[in-house]
Amino acid sequence: MRNIKLTIEYDGKRYLGWQRLGDSDNTIQGKIEGVLTQLTGEKIEIIGSGRTDAGAHARGQVANFKTETTMEREKMLDFMNRYLPQDIIIKKVEDVPERFHARYNTTGKKYSYYVWNDAIPSAFERYYSLHYPQPLDIDKMNQACSLLVGSHDFLGFSSLKKMKKSTVRTIDELSIQREGSLLHFTFVGDGFLYNMVRIIMGTLLEIGAGTMEVSAIEEIFKNRIRQHAGETAPSHGLFLDEVYYR
Amino acid sequence: MRNIKLTIEYDGKRYLGWQRLGDSDNTIQGKIEGVLTQLTGEKIEIIGSGRTDAGAHARGQVANFKTETTMEREKMLDFMNRYLPQDIIIKKVEDVPERFHARYNTTGKKYSYYVWNDAIPSAFERYYSLHYPQPLDIDKMNQACSLLVGSHDFLGFSSLKKMKKSTVRTIDELSIQREGSLLHFTFVGDGFLYNMVRIIMGTLLEIGAGTMEVSAIEEIFKNRIRQHAGETAPSHGLFLDEVYYR
Repeated sequence: MRNIKLTIEYDGKRYLGWQRLGDSDNTIQGKIEGVLTQLTGEKIEIIGSGRTDAGAHARGQVANFKTETTMEREKMLDFMNRYLPQDIIIKKVEDVPERFHARYNTTGKKYSYYVWNDAIPSAFERYYSLHYPQPLDIDKMNQACSLLVGSHDFLGFSSLKKMKKSTVRTIDELSIQREGSLLHFTFVGDGFLYNMVRIIMGTLLEIGAGTMEVSAIEEIFKNRIRQHAGETAPSHGLFLDEVYYR
Repeated sequence: MRNIKLTIEYDGKRYLGWQRLGDSDNTIQGKIEGVLTQLTGEKIEIIGSGRTDAGAHARGQVANFKTETTMEREKMLDFMNRYLPQDIIIKKVEDVPERFHARYNTTGKKYSYYVWNDAIPSAFERYYSLHYPQPLDIDKMNQACSLLVGSHDFLGFSSLKKMKKSTVRTIDELSIQREGSLLHFTFVGDGFLYNMVRIIMGTLLEIGAGTMEVSAIEEIFKNRIRQHAGETAPSHGLFLDEVYYR
């Protein structure tokens, strides 16, 4: 039995997100499974590194699946890219050891979030960044970023109900780069709770706008109250860039 | 009578190009005139700096129009961006002297052309660059670029029939930058003949692929035979970046 690892790029704007909801539905997982079932003649189920939300994008999503097919990797890649919609691209096909599991074996992830920070919207960025027309205090946002880096209980920055499992995560990098009107936020960490990147983004934007204090970060770590954090920023500014494995 | 200058950005993928073809049609000019007629109550005709092809994009197209409206520039800009489709953005509204003419007064233009030069296509670049999977010899393309820079008769690099008007144009800059798999070609010149950028691009790609010699450039300058140049590269890689005025 082969175990195949896929590296996947997708423009999520037309899709209901990663996770298959029903048969042959408009999800990334559904589309890829459909093509793999065509290719192998088997009923294929793929395991993603994690879900991405409706409208969110990926440059380096990872998934794996088991198959009996003997088709060469190069041919599988060509077949998949020929039959998948053009906004879902298989970047890599690899044979991996049978124990490899795209979700359980991740050691971390990298996300980007983009904000188009200009009074005038952008014709090209509208599906790939949040349009935020008001000025933002980048210094204050950077201060908040340095409080967020490190190991903390991020329950208050997630859409999870209180859980038995640990909600402590480690953010290794949270940085802001400006390229003209485009703000590029980079998140690297060992794992991210449900909606964590988008809720941190909503919080950073409130801090940048001056409607929330930098010190709110530490309070939310302590009280873990979701309602004290900012709104969940929209999914269309979010990119899953890379999934790390040992 | 006011004379208003507009600076316009558009994602051309849904449009039949700049130039209005009939009443309220799917062209950039048609969409903008429609909104301006709503705004002013006058029948407005706008003059673009030049046409752009169906599927081609602009970051800095310029147009002007005459109007009796007394509306402030800020309000015009807001009104237009509210009522135009989101893939057409007015970046600037300026009052200019009555003699200003967006087409006759240009002193030059800047274009970009993008090539996604990778065996694997891109989910994000598919409407904004030509996918060219084969390797390209950038050195040879650069040699060809330096032959193209300067003042030459570009008739053979255009879709024009032989004309009485001069077909001599000056290219001030033609450069290639690589950012990962994306090749970015920059064209700056005093004017470009019909399809000139796209035909030069098609020719550069043949030179990069090795199916045409660098020396072909000089031959086409001499014999001015369109058929000796490369194919017209597709419009969706083309961006009108800037229009220059004195």
